[in-house]
Amino acid sequence: MFDTPTPELQTMPLGLYDLVTYAIVAAGFALFAYFLYSWNSTGEVGVRYRPAVLAGLCIAGVAALSYLVLYTKWDTGFDLVGGVYEPNAEARSTLYPRYVDWSVTVPLLTAELLAVCSIAGARARGLRLRTMTAAFLMILTGFLGSQVLAQGRDVTALVVWGLISTAFYAYLYVALIGAVRASMSSMGVEAGRSLRNAALVLLGTFGVYPLVYAVPVFVDVTPAWLAGMQVAYSAADVLAKVGFGVLVHKVAKLRTAEDVAAGVDTHPESVWVSSVRHSEAVLPDPRSEHRTTRFAGNTVDDAPVSAAADARHGATRTTTGRS
Amino acid sequence: MFDTPTPELQTMPLGLYDLVTYAIVAAGFALFAYFLYSWNSTGEVGVRYRPAVLAGLCIAGVAALSYLVLYTKWDTGFDLVGGVYEPNAEARSTLYPRYVDWSVTVPLLTAELLAVCSIAGARARGLRLRTMTAAFLMILTGFLGSQVLAQGRDVTALVVWGLISTAFYAYLYVALIGAVRASMSSMGVEAGRSLRNAALVLLGTFGVYPLVYAVPVFVDVTPAWLAGMQVAYSAADVLAKVGFGVLVHKVAKLRTAEDVAAGVDTHPESVWVSSVRHSEAVLPDPRSEHRTTRFAGNTVDDAPVSAAADARHGATRTTTGRS
Amino acid sequence: MFDTPTPELQTMPLGLYDLVTYAIVAAGFALFAYFLYSWNSTGEVGVRYRPAVLAGLCIAGVAALSYLVLYTKWDTGFDLVGGVYEPNAEARSTLYPRYVDWSVTVPLLTAELLAVCSIAGARARGLRLRTMTAAFLMILTGFLGSQVLAQGRDVTALVVWGLISTAFYAYLYVALIGAVRASMSSMGVEAGRSLRNAALVLLGTFGVYPLVYAVPVFVDVTPAWLAGMQVAYSAADVLAKVGFGVLVHKVAKLRTAEDVAAGVDTHPESVWVSSVRHSEAVLPDPRSEHRTTRFAGNTVDDAPVSAAADARHGATRTTTGRS
Amino acid sequence: MFDTPTPELQTMPLGLYDLVTYAIVAAGFALFAYFLYSWNSTGEVGVRYRPAVLAGLCIAGVAALSYLVLYTKWDTGFDLVGGVYEPNAEARSTLYPRYVDWSVTVPLLTAELLAVCSIAGARARGLRLRTMTAAFLMILTGFLGSQVLAQGRDVTALVVWGLISTAFYAYLYVALIGAVRASMSSMGVEAGRSLRNAALVLLGTFGVYPLVYAVPVFVDVTPAWLAGMQVAYSAADVLAKVGFGVLVHKVAKLRTAEDVAAGVDTHPESVWVSSVRHSEAVLPDPRSEHRTTRFAGNTVDDAPVSAAADARHGATRTTTGRS
Amino acid sequence: MFDTPTPELQTMPLGLYDLVTYAIVAAGFALFAYFLYSWNSTGEVGVRYRPAVLAGLCIAGVAALSYLVLYTKWDTGFDLVGGVYEPNAEARSTLYPRYVDWSVTVPLLTAELLAVCSIAGARARGLRLRTMTAAFLMILTGFLGSQVLAQGRDVTALVVWGLISTAFYAYLYVALIGAVRASMSSMGVEAGRSLRNAALVLLGTFGVYPLVYAVPVFVDVTPAWLAGMQVAYSAADVLAKVGFGVLVHKVAKLRTAEDVAAGVDTHPESVWVSSVRHSEAVLPDPRSEHRTTRFAGNTVDDAPVSAAADARHGATRTTTGRS
Repeated sequence: MFDTPTPELQTMPLGLYDLVTYAIVAAGFALFAYFLYSWNSTGEVGVRYRPAVLAGLCIAGVAALSYLVLYTKWDTGFDLVGGVYEPNAEARSTLYPRYVDWSVTVPLLTAELLAVCSIAGARARGLRLRTMTAAFLMILTGFLGSQVLAQGRDVTALVVWGLISTAFYAYLYVALIGAVRASMSSMGVEAGRSLRNAALVLLGTFGVYPLVYAVPVFVDVTPAWLAGMQVAYSAADVLAKVGFGVLVHKVAKLRTAEDVAAGVDTHPESVWVSSVRHSEAVLPDPRSEHRTTRFAGNTVDDAPVSAAADARHGATRTTTGRS
Repeated sequence: MFDTPTPELQTMPLGLYDLVTYAIVAAGFALFAYFLYSWNSTGEVGVRYRPAVLAGLCIAGVAALSYLVLYTKWDTGFDLVGGVYEPNAEARSTLYPRYVDWSVTVPLLTAELLAVCSIAGARARGLRLRTMTAAFLMILTGFLGSQVLAQGRDVTALVVWGLISTAFYAYLYVALIGAVRASMSSMGVEAGRSLRNAALVLLGTFGVYPLVYAVPVFVDVTPAWLAGMQVAYSAADVLAKVGFGVLVHKVAKLRTAEDVAAGVDTHPESVWVSSVRHSEAVLPDPRSEHRTTRFAGNTVDDAPVSAAADARHGATRTTTGRS
Repeated sequence: MFDTPTPELQTMPLGLYDLVTYAIVAAGFALFAYFLYSWNSTGEVGVRYRPAVLAGLCIAGVAALSYLVLYTKWDTGFDLVGGVYEPNAEARSTLYPRYVDWSVTVPLLTAELLAVCSIAGARARGLRLRTMTAAFLMILTGFLGSQVLAQGRDVTALVVWGLISTAFYAYLYVALIGAVRASMSSMGVEAGRSLRNAALVLLGTFGVYPLVYAVPVFVDVTPAWLAGMQVAYSAADVLAKVGFGVLVHKVAKLRTAEDVAAGVDTHPESVWVSSVRHSEAVLPDPRSEHRTTRFAGNTVDDAPVSAAADARHGATRTTTGRS
Repeated sequence: MFDTPTPELQTMPLGLYDLVTYAIVAAGFALFAYFLYSWNSTGEVGVRYRPAVLAGLCIAGVAALSYLVLYTKWDTGFDLVGGVYEPNAEARSTLYPRYVDWSVTVPLLTAELLAVCSIAGARARGLRLRTMTAAFLMILTGFLGSQVLAQGRDVTALVVWGLISTAFYAYLYVALIGAVRASMSSMGVEAGRSLRNAALVLLGTFGVYPLVYAVPVFVDVTPAWLAGMQVAYSAADVLAKVGFGVLVHKVAKLRTAEDVAAGVDTHPESVWVSSVRHSEAVLPDPRSEHRTTRFAGNTVDDAPVSAAADARHGATRTTTGRS
Repeated sequence: MFDTPTPELQTMPLGLYDLVTYAIVAAGFALFAYFLYSWNSTGEVGVRYRPAVLAGLCIAGVAALSYLVLYTKWDTGFDLVGGVYEPNAEARSTLYPRYVDWSVTVPLLTAELLAVCSIAGARARGLRLRTMTAAFLMILTGFLGSQVLAQGRDVTALVVWGLISTAFYAYLYVALIGAVRASMSSMGVEAGRSLRNAALVLLGTFGVYPLVYAVPVFVDVTPAWLAGMQVAYSAADVLAKVGFGVLVHKVAKLRTAEDVAAGVDTHPESVWVSSVRHSEAVLPDPRSEHRTTRFAGNTVDDAPVSAAADARHGATRTTTGRS
């Protein structure tokens, strides 16, 4: 079986082996740092945009765990023999665990982006379901082509399943760009710009993956190619998860501040971005006060924010709208 | 002992082995993500429905841990020899750890569902105790039939204990459907619809397990059958725990919003579902204010929500009802 | 050394081995679930009864960790040879780690029970110290008899140290029953009934342990006896820690609601038990308001709750009692 | 190298080996329980005394981790051969990891004690720095004498470095006793008594360590001596960290209650110690109210608590004192 | 390959080996303690300076994890043969994992420092981006020179890449000193002094790393040199992360107190530093009150704090400034 080298089964010289170790561990550390940050900063964002931060937290946790698996396999998958690292059976598992991570995190990335867009209600739920499904199928079909069918060594299978995967990417591209475009007008200039940047980072780095996927189609993978693939995947993961997440977090904070300033929501902490205060802290009214000011409070529902809500579903969308 | 292959002890080709690894790790990642989400979103739900979120959290934690055990056993239970994965002694433990997980999580799943239904007081406690017991026995009897008695290789034992297990399933089906039906009228349309969907997902996926359990009764298990069993179990676990949990979480949020809007409870954050606001944030009254408004506050106990409370137990069910 | 089989060193058939694995892992999962629940529900209970929940949390954490050790030793302590599991050196450590767990958790269990009783002040501290010490010595003497002296294979040592251990149990029984009886009148009917049930569960399951301890005194331990011992210990641990803890948690919530309703304490969340509301949420007064209402607030100290407080210690027991 | 047995390299009979395992694991469990308790009870203490609880938390976390290392080394460092446990190379690391733990935790213990004393400002910072440095050097010199220089087998080095270490202990003794004595008058009777007890427990158990350190100077270490050393170290660690910590926690709670009662601080929860209420919950004033009552609020700074503050540093020590 | 000893591959005598173990584990424990402290003290700092504490938390978490890797490699990378520790293949990984840690933590250290400076808005974002990039490149180039190119055994490569790395250090030095100088006047004396000290600690310890890096350029590395390098790196890491972090935390607390005292922000807890109170606790106004006092609140934006904000970006920087 080892006579036809798969991409993972390279005899690595010391420098390249250490470089890949560096890339995997550094990416894992960055994701772990982002995990710690997300866990401890959910409260900075209003409950309306909280799903974005929670998606980022889940993404960071799963990806950090996945890099732990990758590191373990990379660390134990090669034996130092005669000054070079030779692959053993564990080395088979130094690339494809990435697909398992992506199967969970890429759908969550689309949910993270949509959670700071302005699409609401049943329309939001439908779009979220469709994009998360497309994202999952994009990864699953890539996995089938590169690992399951003929162990990824059949160029035809690679190409066919790669194209199917790309079709899902195309849908994602259109659907997410559309959602971002439709949302930018309903928020402030700075938030809108950050939202656009976040979408660019996400969809841009998504373009890196098929390039790396296609490497074995076009070249005979050498140790240097394998090192390049690992470094590229690791860098893309950090960019698409941490870089993207930091931008989404900023959008969520800015929109929280906008909601507080517009009286649409309360927030027990002021909102600061880069030492500039965007809204003051506002506590909810206590219950007794609330009863007397209820009518005033309802006028909030006439604000443009709620106008975006999809009214076709049968639920209550205002505080007092149900009997 | 190894001459009569049990279902777990298959010599797996590479593609199928990797596919099962994918299924186990992806399900574990999804459960871990759901664990992180539950841990950090308990506060989004009012304290009345908090037991539902806490049950979901415990389920996610236990199941994620169980998948870690499964992964470890699957990873170390097969040796790559001559291009195929051959099972070793550890491979015996690549299916039955699932029963241990289910023994704890399936009773908690019924508790999670009941926690967002409207049955209250002693009647709720009785129903919860009966359904949790039935759920535990459903799993335990399945475990005895498939693993302990004759090591699951006696078809008669498989069938007999499978049928006993099914009897408990039948009771669960009737009891839970009854509880959901009785509850739907006491909540809003959207919450009721999500509650019904949650029950359908739960009881529907519960139907997958006996089918997989029965596979060794009807066919000689091959590597492909084993892979199918592992993928089916993993997918069903994600659906019955994460999918179900997300629906229950939505019911809990909608009902929290209804309680706040009806004045039955306070909640320090507004409730948003898919960017639509369902209730404003309301703080409790401070102590001094509370004294003066106490009589008004008591009228809450005449609301229909409390009417569902079982009055037969001797405890205080209103704030001021005990002397 | 291996010619006189100690209880732990049995050659286990597959079915019994799997059954013990099931019991150990299921108990560990249940304790881990209870750990997650306790960690995330401390806030449901007023700060007065918080020590009970914190004790439960510590118990759950330590016991879950202890079951991890047990599982590891059980998993690696037997080798599959010729269709049966034969013990190796690690198998010596598949029973006695339980004593280490109990040395920490049983004293905490008595503290958990006392934290929801009505005994207060120096009297509470004295009783807590005595019962925790007795609980520790009950376990330590059992450990010395069953493991350290002649490696638990001297029947005389087993009996003598077993009887000494039982004497501490007798003290615990009397002291805890007394505390519960003295407390029941000072709380509501439902809380009192749950407190009594909790004490019965705790002291009842405590009776299981000496029975299992005495097994090697009366019978030659066989694989089936060992399996029975492991299953009995695991079930008793779940009952005495999780079952007991859930009951204590309910007492703590009901008593929190009683304190809020009586004006003795504030609590930022309402208290719900099985969907029945037992008290409203009440915020503390802000500082400025507090100054003006201080005299009214002090009347709280004349309530019967504080009357139970032991006045002999020199400290301040009221807000304004010290100058 | 193994012909001159170092203290750690004893051939242990079963009973003594199990006893040491018991001592190490039980101490580790107790520290882990204390870790869980500290993590979840920081909020019970006002922010002024919070550093004490945080120090306790760090101590518990580091010590629990250190016992995990100790347990792993003890568990793998001995092989069961012919009915006795024979040490292997790992057994060298079954005593000295304790010094690593102490290098971090003993300085933190002095910080924990000082955080509930009344010394404030620059004087507090100076004293803290000096005592933490002395505590670190006390441990480091002990480590050099017992492990690094001649591997702890040179009696002269043991004695000389032991005496140097003792000199730092003497400084600590004087400095900490002085701080406690100076503080007792500024707090209530019960808090003062607990503070004195905490100091006694800490400095008393500190005396156990040099005794154990000196064992190899005076006797030929036998298995029983080694077991005694391990049990003594483990018991002293539990006493000096958990026992001491519980007393400090009580002081911190009582002083929090005193500050709230005196109007020096607010605290969102009431303070209860052993079911006796020591202060009511008091919320801060909201911002608008604060503006109008600011002058009244400032009078707090004339209270005796602040009088202890060191005024020589250039910073603002009152809310409005800086322009 | 092993005939030209790289710095890591030394045969270590017992005393030096234990000393390095001590240094690595002690530094790891200190970082873990700081991690626990940061996690549980984020709330002590206002949301404006929260990024500093969160950066510290991420740094502590990543560095503690990195020391776990280092310890594992050091512990397993040497075999005790004939009374000395001889390196095996794992020993290659006992120095360079430090570079992975630094690649993530050093950029975060610059962010931590800037988060308590007074530079705001787009200017802050630009400076942060530039310094974080320079910090990353400073480490990456050092890693390439010392590990990847000719495995760090080419003196020319060491020198060239070391100089490139130093150039980035020079930029960092200038940029960070500039930011600190520009900020000191906008805060109180005590905060400013602590900020200066923090910068000195950070930039001072940064100077230690190139010295250690240059050791193999100037000397033939011996066991004593290797031990010195490990001890120096470990001590510098503790100083630059924990010592620096404690100073930054103090600045953040003092500035929080200043903001509360100046009415720029609210904070639900009072701020105490070394038992001296620097500000009272102030709650935000409730929503209804907020509406009536909004104009007064806006005057805050005329305070000098906001004057530092960069106004060139298009976003809202005040509560009501956007329409």
